[in-house]
Amino acid sequence: MKINAYFATSLDGFIARTDGSLDWLPQPEADGEDYGYSHFFNSMDVLVMGRNTYETVLTFGEWPYADKRVFVLSSRKLDMPAFVPQILTQRACSPGELAQELSTQGVEQVYVDGGKTIQSFLRAGLLDEITISIIPVLIGRGIPLFGPLDADVKLQVVESQSFENGIIQNRYMILR
Amino acid sequence: MKINAYFATSLDGFIARTDGSLDWLPQPEADGEDYGYSHFFNSMDVLVMGRNTYETVLTFGEWPYADKRVFVLSSRKLDMPAFVPQILTQRACSPGELAQELSTQGVEQVYVDGGKTIQSFLRAGLLDEITISIIPVLIGRGIPLFGPLDADVKLQVVESQSFENGIIQNRYMILR
Repeated sequence: MKINAYFATSLDGFIARTDGSLDWLPQPEADGEDYGYSHFFNSMDVLVMGRNTYETVLTFGEWPYADKRVFVLSSRKLDMPAFVPQILTQRACSPGELAQELSTQGVEQVYVDGGKTIQSFLRAGLLDEITISIIPVLIGRGIPLFGPLDADVKLQVVESQSFENGIIQNRYMILR
Repeated sequence: MKINAYFATSLDGFIARTDGSLDWLPQPEADGEDYGYSHFFNSMDVLVMGRNTYETVLTFGEWPYADKRVFVLSSRKLDMPAFVPQILTQRACSPGELAQELSTQGVEQVYVDGGKTIQSFLRAGLLDEITISIIPVLIGRGIPLFGPLDADVKLQVVESQSFENGIIQNRYMILR
């Protein structure tokens, strides 16, 4: 089983402004260029997120993940409006316990989303691959993706790609 | 006149550990690969740094900049051991005043080094180009290169290069 993260950061390393806003992300391209996101998303069996990401998704008013199996890691009961599909599963367990459960089920590709959730999988040594799209803008302050670690984490570049609008997308394998 | 910065960061955006150490940087390559640094350095007319970088350089016990003209921005008197060349000039002025002085002298390429000094040129809207080498390691905590800004700063990718050891080097032009 492989656990993957996929996200965009500003050049100064933030995934959102301090208030959570993403207005600095480039607008979707008219030609449908999505920097490989659909391809990535479609190749994932399961999506795992934390409460913060889940609550942000709820503000969209519609469910963006079609019939993808989604797990939300949260110890508190989730608000579940009618548009949230039955396929959503809540777990109050640790990243390691969820990874064990998914692995036992034969899941092959896991997509982990949300800053805190990505960090917790990383710190637990469970993350295998991260794809980072660097947006060519400095926003000065915001929410960093990465956080404190017990030890250095070394990575290996799998792929590096430049897009016309200045986005540089790097895919790294985490070395253990 | 063009003002340039050139530096390496960990993938989590730090230019040094909290204690200033750089042990996470890759060792120099046996084949002399220096990721374009000599080429960059040789094409610069003047090097500008702050007191912190100057004091770090003093610990080397020898002067690494040959006969390059060097300006140190500091309001306090500098310690100047015998190995520091006479070519070194101290200024207590602002980045803008120094840029004005250098421009009047016909200087064409300025290399600004040191986290705080790069930040102060960036905040003053004086930086033209930055070259960032991203080292494939997460160090968890440290000294970030970038800091708060009054407004977003947009950039444009000039060049993106991958090296065999996983370093990804991106050169950005700052848009104004």
